[in-house]
Amino acid sequence: MTILLSVTGFQPTEWLNALQERAPRRAVILEPNSANDASVDYAIVWKQKPGVLAGLPNLKAIFSIGAGVDHILRDPHLPDVPIVRIVADDLTARMSEYVVWRVLDHFRRGMAYRAQQAAGLWHDRVQPAAHEMTVGIMGLGELGRDAAQKLGVLGFNIVGWSRTEKTVAGVESFYGASGLDPFLARTDILVVLLPITPETHGILDTGLFSRLKHRTPIGGPVLINAGRGGLQVESAILKALDDETLMEASLDVFETEPLPASSRLWKHPRVFVTPHAAATSNAQALVPQILAQIDAFERGEELQHLVDRQAGY
Amino acid sequence: MTILLSVTGFQPTEWLNALQERAPRRAVILEPNSANDASVDYAIVWKQKPGVLAGLPNLKAIFSIGAGVDHILRDPHLPDVPIVRIVADDLTARMSEYVVWRVLDHFRRGMAYRAQQAAGLWHDRVQPAAHEMTVGIMGLGELGRDAAQKLGVLGFNIVGWSRTEKTVAGVESFYGASGLDPFLARTDILVVLLPITPETHGILDTGLFSRLKHRTPIGGPVLINAGRGGLQVESAILKALDDETLMEASLDVFETEPLPASSRLWKHPRVFVTPHAAATSNAQALVPQILAQIDAFERGEELQHLVDRQAGY
Ligand SMILES: NC(=O)c1ccc[n+]([C@@H]2O[C@H](COP(=O)([O-])OP(=O)(O)OC[C@H]3O[C@@H](n4cnc5c(N)ncnc54)[C@H](OP(=O)(O)O)[C@@H]3O)[C@@H](O)[C@H]2O)c1
Ligand SMILES: NC(=O)c1ccc[n+]([C@@H]2O[C@H](COP(=O)([O-])OP(=O)(O)OC[C@H]3O[C@@H](n4cnc5c(N)ncnc54)[C@H](OP(=O)(O)O)[C@@H]3O)[C@@H](O)[C@H]2O)c1
Repeated sequence: MTILLSVTGFQPTEWLNALQERAPRRAVILEPNSANDASVDYAIVWKQKPGVLAGLPNLKAIFSIGAGVDHILRDPHLPDVPIVRIVADDLTARMSEYVVWRVLDHFRRGMAYRAQQAAGLWHDRVQPAAHEMTVGIMGLGELGRDAAQKLGVLGFNIVGWSRTEKTVAGVESFYGASGLDPFLARTDILVVLLPITPETHGILDTGLFSRLKHRTPIGGPVLINAGRGGLQVESAILKALDDETLMEASLDVFETEPLPASSRLWKHPRVFVTPHAAATSNAQALVPQILAQIDAFERGEELQHLVDRQAGY
Repeated sequence: MTILLSVTGFQPTEWLNALQERAPRRAVILEPNSANDASVDYAIVWKQKPGVLAGLPNLKAIFSIGAGVDHILRDPHLPDVPIVRIVADDLTARMSEYVVWRVLDHFRRGMAYRAQQAAGLWHDRVQPAAHEMTVGIMGLGELGRDAAQKLGVLGFNIVGWSRTEKTVAGVESFYGASGLDPFLARTDILVVLLPITPETHGILDTGLFSRLKHRTPIGGPVLINAGRGGLQVESAILKALDDETLMEASLDVFETEPLPASSRLWKHPRVFVTPHAAATSNAQALVPQILAQIDAFERGEELQHLVDRQAGY
């Protein structure tokens, strides 16, 4: 009846409090009590210390604190138990807020208007209508599909790209390697909501940027990445911005996090940086769902939102 | 069969071209041919030169180039013919883009994150969920209702305020003088989409700001005005920002336009200024609708979207 909460990179206080409050009959610990701690049945983790899970002989399932599981899978001593990821309205809604916000800020020329304001310049930019713009979403999973639907409500055309064939209402869908070029050729604003896997690592590179539309109704193409930093080659993003292959970018994730002070991305006038905050995992919203899964599992039901280790997400 | 296109403040080229292209059998003129020009049947106007319409003995209707008609009504020599305003999906969609963009930018702490980026600071802000926030919309007309619906899709609570009683799905509605206080008391982010009339002139003043919630899930209350500049008392906005009665503001309209270089609003770090560009009237989208109304009127049908001169909108 013990849960190990194994977290690095942020303070686990809110998660610990929420777990203790909602599961008073379970013990919640932040470190195993001993090497080979047989008391631990479940682990709830974010970037667990490598190897910590291997020392738990009775571990039955691992729960990710986020939608992504790359932070779990990178552990070379990961035991072979089911991994459950977060799929939750609260998280999905937050990501769609971020995506709609960033798409609108680029589309409505936020960067240009802020520069004009700083210069005291009263001048209205030519503004296309949303239906003249196409947002291309890489990753039509839980997050990509919700963002597509909400962008569609605002009138944008939506194209999407996934690994396997998908039918999503209101979205022209492409998939696989052969679908990537036609997808990119239609895209004015590229939104990236892919997981990081061996296949997607470094996919946002010079070659990909050069296959986006060169001219778009707002000028040039825009990159918005809220997937993972490892998807992007930051030197290629900077080069593409400098030679106008990309007009602007919003980046929430980075090759190295926190983004090093030395990165030119911090000061680039056409880049908007957020600190991996597009969709935070809120303990109050998510702990009840994880505990409900544990209860159901103990009643003999199947775990939901299981990760496919082979695919890597 | 002559249309007078009477415009000040912007170049009428796009409107002239669109009219000539779509109504080749009508003459379109930018000035009356003479004093008492009996050839003009219709006027399409934005801030017409005062008196110009009084000299048109056969004028049958005036069409506003925008949703608002204050720019027409201020003419002391306005003839007593029907005034038609713009109600069009294209215009409405543009305004909702602006509103959703500005609400999200304040809600997701765009100003704070841009300041952090400039300082090279990696730090994620506490982020409430949309359903913890209430957007209050002053003006539940064509524009306010569409913005309410689109903000609702993102999960915000919506309250609204109008002159007469309104029932709008998903919106808790208040109306009239007695409804204003309870409306303001619930509002975290105030969106203003009112017309300017003798009743609404200067309504956004110190007294109103002080009746907004003092503490909101993102800190303090936010003002977004895309109605008309005459609704706001700019000295009161600056005072409220400085004493933290208001946390931030997005202003698209101003007491004097263009906003004078001397205005402190230009440089205020918590104000976002756009040059009356929230929802531009697009000639390609709107001319066909105006011409269709003229055709229908000539077939004996009633004009749509007529202005109530008594109410002033
Ligand atoms: N920045 C943040 O705050 C934040 C917060 C939460 C999540 N995230 C990131 O968002 C990612 C997506 O989350 P989700 O819940 O939407 O995941 P999901 O439901 O697993 O969806 C992933 C999507 O990516 C597609 N995909 C995976 N590999 C691909 C490949 N090689 N080629 C083409 N498409 C591929 C999948 O295709 P199929 O549909 O064919 O499987 C699927 O459509 C997470 O993995 C995480 O990295 C970031
Ligand atoms: N910044 C821009 O680019 C831009 C572009 C387009 C329009 N606008 C502005 O947006 C305004 C609204 O456009 P719309 O098409 O939504 O107009 P509308 O359909 O006429 O709606 C006006 C709304 O304001 C309410 N209202 C009017 N006087 C009021 C009062 N004294 N007290 C309380 N509520 C009052 C009306 O109440 P009832 O429902 O009870 O009548 C109605 O709900 C226009 O008048 C224009 O000034 C700005």
